[in-house]
Amino acid sequence: MTPTDRVRAAYARLALGERPEAWIMLRPERDVLADAAAVEARLAAGEHLPLAGRLLAVKDNIDVAGLPTTAACPAYAYRPGRSAPAVQRLVDAGALILGKTNLDQFATGLVGTRSPYGAVRHARDPARVAGGSSSGSAVAVALGIADLAVGTDTAGSGRVPAAFQGIVGVKPTPGLVPTDGVVPACRSFDCVTVFARTVTEGTEAMAIMSDPVFPADAPLAAPPHPIVAVPDRGELTGMAPAWLDAFEQAATSLQTRGARLRPIRLAPFLAAAKLLYNGGFVAERYAAVGDFIDGHPDEIDPTVRAIIGAARDIPAHVLVADTERLAHLRREAMTAWGDADALLLPTAPIHPTIAEVDADPIGVNAAVGTYTNFCNLFGLSAVAVPAGEAGGTNFGVQVVARGFADAVAGDIAALLTGEAPAGRGGRGLPVMVVGAHLSGQPLNHQLTGAGGRLLRPVRTAPQYRLHALATAPPKPGLVRVTDGGGAIEGELWELPQAAVGPFLAALPTPMALGQVQLEDGSTVTGFLCEAVAVEQAPDITAYGGWLAYMASHPQT
Amino acid sequence: MTPTDRVRAAYARLALGERPEAWIMLRPERDVLADAAAVEARLAAGEHLPLAGRLLAVKDNIDVAGLPTTAACPAYAYRPGRSAPAVQRLVDAGALILGKTNLDQFATGLVGTRSPYGAVRHARDPARVAGGSSSGSAVAVALGIADLAVGTDTAGSGRVPAAFQGIVGVKPTPGLVPTDGVVPACRSFDCVTVFARTVTEGTEAMAIMSDPVFPADAPLAAPPHPIVAVPDRGELTGMAPAWLDAFEQAATSLQTRGARLRPIRLAPFLAAAKLLYNGGFVAERYAAVGDFIDGHPDEIDPTVRAIIGAARDIPAHVLVADTERLAHLRREAMTAWGDADALLLPTAPIHPTIAEVDADPIGVNAAVGTYTNFCNLFGLSAVAVPAGEAGGTNFGVQVVARGFADAVAGDIAALLTGEAPAGRGGRGLPVMVVGAHLSGQPLNHQLTGAGGRLLRPVRTAPQYRLHALATAPPKPGLVRVTDGGGAIEGELWELPQAAVGPFLAALPTPMALGQVQLEDGSTVTGFLCEAVAVEQAPDITAYGGWLAYMASHPQT
Repeated sequence: MTPTDRVRAAYARLALGERPEAWIMLRPERDVLADAAAVEARLAAGEHLPLAGRLLAVKDNIDVAGLPTTAACPAYAYRPGRSAPAVQRLVDAGALILGKTNLDQFATGLVGTRSPYGAVRHARDPARVAGGSSSGSAVAVALGIADLAVGTDTAGSGRVPAAFQGIVGVKPTPGLVPTDGVVPACRSFDCVTVFARTVTEGTEAMAIMSDPVFPADAPLAAPPHPIVAVPDRGELTGMAPAWLDAFEQAATSLQTRGARLRPIRLAPFLAAAKLLYNGGFVAERYAAVGDFIDGHPDEIDPTVRAIIGAARDIPAHVLVADTERLAHLRREAMTAWGDADALLLPTAPIHPTIAEVDADPIGVNAAVGTYTNFCNLFGLSAVAVPAGEAGGTNFGVQVVARGFADAVAGDIAALLTGEAPAGRGGRGLPVMVVGAHLSGQPLNHQLTGAGGRLLRPVRTAPQYRLHALATAPPKPGLVRVTDGGGAIEGELWELPQAAVGPFLAALPTPMALGQVQLEDGSTVTGFLCEAVAVEQAPDITAYGGWLAYMASHPQT
Repeated sequence: MTPTDRVRAAYARLALGERPEAWIMLRPERDVLADAAAVEARLAAGEHLPLAGRLLAVKDNIDVAGLPTTAACPAYAYRPGRSAPAVQRLVDAGALILGKTNLDQFATGLVGTRSPYGAVRHARDPARVAGGSSSGSAVAVALGIADLAVGTDTAGSGRVPAAFQGIVGVKPTPGLVPTDGVVPACRSFDCVTVFARTVTEGTEAMAIMSDPVFPADAPLAAPPHPIVAVPDRGELTGMAPAWLDAFEQAATSLQTRGARLRPIRLAPFLAAAKLLYNGGFVAERYAAVGDFIDGHPDEIDPTVRAIIGAARDIPAHVLVADTERLAHLRREAMTAWGDADALLLPTAPIHPTIAEVDADPIGVNAAVGTYTNFCNLFGLSAVAVPAGEAGGTNFGVQVVARGFADAVAGDIAALLTGEAPAGRGGRGLPVMVVGAHLSGQPLNHQLTGAGGRLLRPVRTAPQYRLHALATAPPKPGLVRVTDGGGAIEGELWELPQAAVGPFLAALPTPMALGQVQLEDGSTVTGFLCEAVAVEQAPDITAYGGWLAYMASHPQT
């Protein structure tokens, strides 16, 4: 399907009028068709557009140039001159914006009902909430109308609706995606997120939305056997037995796919979660929109007004004390976290009906956020994925990883959905390995343990000789020659920049890292060997690679 | 002098009773002599104690096990069970604690007069203030009684008294030295600092006090020709002409010693400085000691009580707004900063008399902090150094560097005092270079530009051959051989970990990095060359190194 075809199909579907409350503003079809034609022209001109023709919905607290931003409050609306960078990067990559989606007003909520544009109903079960605050964005993807939807997440707004809708929600490390052009909720903790139907699509879009601000030691991939912290059933309060079973099944499935599970105590995580609304941090919401709310009391959702308005009189020293309490809880939580690569949690403990929310808007909302609220307070990354159905509703889990370990969260989430882990590279050093560092070989853990990721198998240009060195563990030595030689098989890995120095420092004589020419003529950093060391070592070039040689020469 | 001799000399000097108000508590001489004996025993047992017998004064808002911590408020005193890590690390390195020093109460002040233990007078001119809040610590060093003194610095308390006393004050990047065991002033911005009589002694002590938390790309040294931003005379308001002249002389002297100067606009820095006391951040002081102050109004210095007490009713949303304003100002300031390695500023614009402070305690104090207040708000590092005398008083300047570029601040400060820049290493990768990367050679900038530092000249074991390669620029190729060969001269550099990957990626064929054996038998990472590339290249081993060869073969 061409971009134009995709737009037409989407508008045909939109004409059916399913969950119209998901949208605050739909662009005229002809405008989107014009964008599609422009994308097609760029493709024809040879541009590489990784998101060419992907249909995009944007939560209406995020600026799109020329469209009003309402934050689900008509009186607050303004018309921005330019799009938020997070959105613009997706458009630059070929995405086509369908319109702006409904949300809990000022992104204050996890239910999706706090909006004058209508309580957003679940895509399949209209009695239940869509989940919020990015309710419309999640429903647009769940209905199959949008391929991708941009949301925000402070307390869980980019994950809870993903869980309820059975789709994927990618929440980056705070600070990774610029929040310029986003109406602040609680600015210190706001993240721009993306919804997609697969982890692969979601993490690809997230890579495009992100700033290049990873620290040099940020992992590029999950290790092959990640350590995943999983709370015991008894730690998960407020969940129905069917959901507890579903959670345990998700953990078991991770284990089946190679993860090493270990228990974790959730108390410090859950204590921090309570700080987000029951303390000083709500003052950030007042600082963002308090003056507006005070000036327009009748145009604000009553629940939102009650929450934000009450923050006006919080003293600053209470905010300071909560900040210190948060720092203490974070230290405690990360001590419990220990050497785990990720933490597996239910995304939400319950999926309420709209009637249940109406009966207790604040209490039910707070319960929904039990397992998501702490993430941004602690500066963590997370990916929410579907984990089957239980008790008649979608059940979802989230893979939570350390700050800037977004690639780890994505890879473990992909393990859960059965997709291929892809890591998140492009910022490390590609290194060709030809021997003991190959996948499955004795020193491969030096690459995976440092957060490295396998890029692809590669082969050298046909001007190298491989020798079997008398080292322990056995290793080959690769040397470039002018006479004869052959093409040698190996793997290209990508290493985090901060891992290169320690790797080099640990390199034993006679190994060296230099430039290796590949069969396509390109050159990469790769393993070489001092010539003096191969003088007495058998020439095994004829095997074409270390693995073939080793298969013929099993070690005793 | 042995540690015991040093203690005896210090107590003989203390018996003279100069500036007794500098001390809140002096330890009995016999206790310090016992510590000195213990240090001597450790030395005799072969321990390496870099600070063996250095006499240490500790500001009395920092815990020393067994001594009361008063924060200059007798009613607040408590007796901690263990020392602050910053102090303990100095003691572990052999320093001997003389006692606890006076300060502006709760470290709230830059003058040193706000203390029930007495207004601390300047070491030479008793009519003038010592400078604060670390007044006693600075005076103890200035009098020559203590070799090192620990202070704290939120608004400038570790730099202003150094300037007034004509000594060195090293203020680390916030977060580098743990603040555990320190009575908080404004916790987000508090730093533990050290005073010394030379930059070398100060930065050595600071390296011992610091946590190993530098990011992988933190520079290890200043480049040989650092870019130093220097405000024009017109930007420096409130300074006497003699001090303006002295400031310009300091800048000129930096230029003479190799720095490249360029102007900078100070407006965003000075605007941020005002936020520290005129807004929401004072609430941090209230959060720390407000309850105590409210409960003991008569035992608090009236100026301190007025400042901190007023913060009780600041609303949290004002603190949030100030935090956002600070973030904006920081972006603006760092844009003005641009590619500078450091910013040179006066440490203080005036040196008031005690009478001037008494007449206007808050106004004069605020003026003193004009050029120091912003540093911790922006997360920067700084070293304050003496810059001669002007107008009858000591004049001081500070070298301000980016966060975690503490080594750059230290090196440029050493340029100013005429000491040898030493950098701050031990966390990078040592790499031996033998050719175009040597000091003064065409590719040396790849090392200095990445924040690398020269460790020392080195020579290989006598089993290498050096060849002159036909590359541009000309380079040698080093290969290890079994027959013959010689020892080759080179330099050992230390590279920041994050710089290693890019360095390796940029390495052209036939260069490689592997292990090189040095003449002392140790092994370091170093430059090697693919053997295939030296087959046709002249053997220049007999020259003993690249520089000797180049001297005999000038390039056309």
